[in-house]
Amino acid sequence: MKLVSTIFKYLEKRSLYTTSTMAKSKFEYVKNFECDENLLPNCWIVVRVDGKSFHKFTTKHSFKKPNDSQALWLMNKAASVVMDEFKDILLSYGQSDEYSFVLRKDSMLYNRRKTKIMTYINSLFSSAYVFFWNEYFPDVKLKYPPSFDSRVVLYPSDENLRDYLSWRQADCHINNLYNTVFWALVQKGHLTNTEAEQRLCGTFSSDKNEILFTEFNTNYNNEPLMYRKGTILIRKKIKSPKSGKNKIIILPLHEDLIQDQFWKKNFEILEIQATQFYDWPPELEIPEFVKKQFKIETN
Amino acid sequence: MKLVSTIFKYLEKRSLYTTSTMAKSKFEYVKNFECDENLLPNCWIVVRVDGKSFHKFTTKHSFKKPNDSQALWLMNKAASVVMDEFKDILLSYGQSDEYSFVLRKDSMLYNRRKTKIMTYINSLFSSAYVFFWNEYFPDVKLKYPPSFDSRVVLYPSDENLRDYLSWRQADCHINNLYNTVFWALVQKGHLTNTEAEQRLCGTFSSDKNEILFTEFNTNYNNEPLMYRKGTILIRKKIKSPKSGKNKIIILPLHEDLIQDQFWKKNFEILEIQATQFYDWPPELEIPEFVKKQFKIETN
Amino acid sequence: MKLVSTIFKYLEKRSLYTTSTMAKSKFEYVKNFECDENLLPNCWIVVRVDGKSFHKFTTKHSFKKPNDSQALWLMNKAASVVMDEFKDILLSYGQSDEYSFVLRKDSMLYNRRKTKIMTYINSLFSSAYVFFWNEYFPDVKLKYPPSFDSRVVLYPSDENLRDYLSWRQADCHINNLYNTVFWALVQKGHLTNTEAEQRLCGTFSSDKNEILFTEFNTNYNNEPLMYRKGTILIRKKIKSPKSGKNKIIILPLHEDLIQDQFWKKNFEILEIQATQFYDWPPELEIPEFVKKQFKIETN
Amino acid sequence: MKLVSTIFKYLEKRSLYTTSTMAKSKFEYVKNFECDENLLPNCWIVVRVDGKSFHKFTTKHSFKKPNDSQALWLMNKAASVVMDEFKDILLSYGQSDEYSFVLRKDSMLYNRRKTKIMTYINSLFSSAYVFFWNEYFPDVKLKYPPSFDSRVVLYPSDENLRDYLSWRQADCHINNLYNTVFWALVQKGHLTNTEAEQRLCGTFSSDKNEILFTEFNTNYNNEPLMYRKGTILIRKKIKSPKSGKNKIIILPLHEDLIQDQFWKKNFEILEIQATQFYDWPPELEIPEFVKKQFKIETN
Repeated sequence: MKLVSTIFKYLEKRSLYTTSTMAKSKFEYVKNFECDENLLPNCWIVVRVDGKSFHKFTTKHSFKKPNDSQALWLMNKAASVVMDEFKDILLSYGQSDEYSFVLRKDSMLYNRRKTKIMTYINSLFSSAYVFFWNEYFPDVKLKYPPSFDSRVVLYPSDENLRDYLSWRQADCHINNLYNTVFWALVQKGHLTNTEAEQRLCGTFSSDKNEILFTEFNTNYNNEPLMYRKGTILIRKKIKSPKSGKNKIIILPLHEDLIQDQFWKKNFEILEIQATQFYDWPPELEIPEFVKKQFKIETN
Repeated sequence: MKLVSTIFKYLEKRSLYTTSTMAKSKFEYVKNFECDENLLPNCWIVVRVDGKSFHKFTTKHSFKKPNDSQALWLMNKAASVVMDEFKDILLSYGQSDEYSFVLRKDSMLYNRRKTKIMTYINSLFSSAYVFFWNEYFPDVKLKYPPSFDSRVVLYPSDENLRDYLSWRQADCHINNLYNTVFWALVQKGHLTNTEAEQRLCGTFSSDKNEILFTEFNTNYNNEPLMYRKGTILIRKKIKSPKSGKNKIIILPLHEDLIQDQFWKKNFEILEIQATQFYDWPPELEIPEFVKKQFKIETN
Repeated sequence: MKLVSTIFKYLEKRSLYTTSTMAKSKFEYVKNFECDENLLPNCWIVVRVDGKSFHKFTTKHSFKKPNDSQALWLMNKAASVVMDEFKDILLSYGQSDEYSFVLRKDSMLYNRRKTKIMTYINSLFSSAYVFFWNEYFPDVKLKYPPSFDSRVVLYPSDENLRDYLSWRQADCHINNLYNTVFWALVQKGHLTNTEAEQRLCGTFSSDKNEILFTEFNTNYNNEPLMYRKGTILIRKKIKSPKSGKNKIIILPLHEDLIQDQFWKKNFEILEIQATQFYDWPPELEIPEFVKKQFKIETN
Repeated sequence: MKLVSTIFKYLEKRSLYTTSTMAKSKFEYVKNFECDENLLPNCWIVVRVDGKSFHKFTTKHSFKKPNDSQALWLMNKAASVVMDEFKDILLSYGQSDEYSFVLRKDSMLYNRRKTKIMTYINSLFSSAYVFFWNEYFPDVKLKYPPSFDSRVVLYPSDENLRDYLSWRQADCHINNLYNTVFWALVQKGHLTNTEAEQRLCGTFSSDKNEILFTEFNTNYNNEPLMYRKGTILIRKKIKSPKSGKNKIIILPLHEDLIQDQFWKKNFEILEIQATQFYDWPPELEIPEFVKKQFKIETN
């Protein structure tokens, strides 16, 4: 009977044969009510997670307005945990209480099962956000577990994908400009929220820049890049500032990704090529986020 | 022009008119690539969350085998947070590293949008699991953020829904019986994992009960109910042991839900009726889980 | 090697093994872009076909207004061809240029593949409509091939299904009452189409009945049942007026299906039971449609 | 109140306002059970129709084996009716009892509603097949209405689309070579069907070519192009052989579409450009199919 067992093993290996999972009970028919959708091949897969009722959440936890740097780095941290787990994510982009994850268009993660991809990323992001809370807010007690929704969108062409990311970054710009002026009017101009809203109603970008400049002596373009551009996470090879050895890390960039330049510099993403070397510009300080990945003592 | 503005307000209120969200950028067309599915009306909605790689997770965190009571109560706690947030969940059932949430068949939660319902429940469960970890494992450091997948299944009839829950409870029984014998063989019988597996290969329930009884002096039916039946969470009105006032709480039951009796006693679920009063049987101790909801000092 | 071939045959029979369809070409990967949806089990399946641009079609082929009896019988004939082919259709309901087909809720036709069910029924209906044109319009040349769209809708409960059919019959009533008055005003009242429309704008059912009665001496309730109620097709056992033997035929009924009476009389539909005997009431003439099925000479 | 009515008209025109369709009956809620899927933008849409049980159909109607030229031209005719109705179809490809229709990737036909596109094309094809039967089979009575299933597949890239069409053309080649040898063995070699099958079992293309050449003196490459390559339908501008004026017609080609040459010559398809001029090669006879479109007397 050795022949027979050899045949079965051969078949199993080639997935031509499966020992039908022993029906454990007469109730098992209910499994047929489940249905699974596979994502169309050869399309970029974008998963976006988005905070639920974060307006309330930021108030309850006294986030700094218009931007809380620590809160944004916690988002970046949670996103990096997700990227670390799912190597098919080539790039992530985050701003405010949302993060978008871009999976390679040829990804076969979970056989492209829509629900698996969407819920695992969503769950890990949520869980990591709570897990690392204390690291980013050592003095603020998390009052209740926050939650995020998640969605999957397919983009067939590189142009569609770039336009998606440009859409989110344009959204970041518009909201951040609004919020920067709004909170200047409230915090420094001593207007009520309603008064500030009314003041801004119907104004254009140029008007908002003008208010910031003339009334609050603020040049919007000097605001921190992370606030204005959001955060792009990509994998890069970097020489360790500690050991001098090359290591692949998840790099946070706060750059314009609407123009071609970003995509030329980081061609490996759209071309789905190997991780590229990144030479840290001498004038820039290496951010904590990167140092931590090299396990360098940070303060 | 007051008339005009009145008309617009009237229309807006009735959702007959929407100020088309000002196209914020030329990239906004990418929103059309999103697609949303609505769940068929008049069907029971079941959302099941399921631990990812929990075999590894339980090992890394030294969960007691075959059952870790604290780990199960943490699952129950996370599920109760979800039930508390989504009132349309009438019943939840958990066992091992999975939890099923049953939403009323007439639920209009998020307009029955499949993705919203699935991902919010999944995210909140994951986030609550981490949030309450310390409360259930004060002496065990959580080593990394765990994650869960999630799925939605529709069941058109009451019978289908009952069969679904029966399927999960039968699954609980089969796995728990197996695990109980397996770990007895390993922990008390000093077999290796492989030896225990081989010993159990091809055995029937009766064989497993026999092994437990003759070799380990254990009557399986005396094992704790929570291990054998899993946990059912339902809302009940209970007289507070503290104030004497009635309060609606989330009640954990460890009962057979395969037989009719459970569904007769708790008729309000299938009939979608008001929360019923639950009179705590004098011979039973009120579990910590319930006491906490009444904010009674517990040890 | 006889043993081996026996094993393969055994596996094939149980669908545990499939000779992987020989990859005929390197292009075959494109098959993975196809995706198939299965209809939720235990729901009534309704397929509705609906004429495309039939306003133009009826004009081009000079259909009688407001109702062309022959055109309706052609629809009934095409529907009966569909019912004859797909035995899982328990009942069909047609009115105007649409037909609804109700498949038993436990149907496993094409494994409940949505697209297969929808397109086969649609195609056969369309093809039969053209095929039998000459039989119903021997003197009218079909000028171009008509077409129909089709959709699938699931109804989880008997009540939902009845309400669906009631909805279509109520629609038939409303449209037919309107059309009956409209064409009376145009054909007998010598109004233009626009004048007739204006006359009817804002009128209630009672007004329309009144116009018919006072101006055209017509009692709407005396209009032919097929026009007012549409056509229900169900399978019944009937004694052949020719041979005296029982035969299962597709029976056209023009009855109210909104009230309970219809569903009590024809209980076999909702209860998915065997075809029932139908005793033709002596006062009713057996319609041509039935005679044809018994191959009785008709004039 | 003129202002108000102006506002409403303005809103209606911009689809910002809809007079909520008057609920005609209490049953209308059942409409909510319908659900519509939109096809992902920026993907090529392929609709393929496929004959149901055509093996039986060809036998019942005595189609010539291995190929019935008239039957293939009837398929081509039905496909051209579909292309004529839906201008977004840029190319169609047919072989045996199937036809594929390629819609431009930017098509907004029926707002890209999957079901509408799939069922209208399917219905019109089926209906046209019956409608034109007599024209192609004047001496064969159609015995029963044939039917076709239909499916929609999306292809994100030009390469995927070309591979899809190559797959179908490779399929045409493989089947036609097989059928050509099979029927030679049966018709000229006087084998039974089973004997011919056994003879061909396990043979390669080269073997089949060899059999044809040595046993039946047939060079497969001299078989008619339509049988070996199938039929490609594309729109071209052609000088009328009758009036000398240019006219856009649907042109049948029997060419290799796997190689680049076809796509270079007919660049307008993938580039979605205007219909190109086609200069009929002098050595080729203009097919009946084209003459008919110019309403030239044909025999």
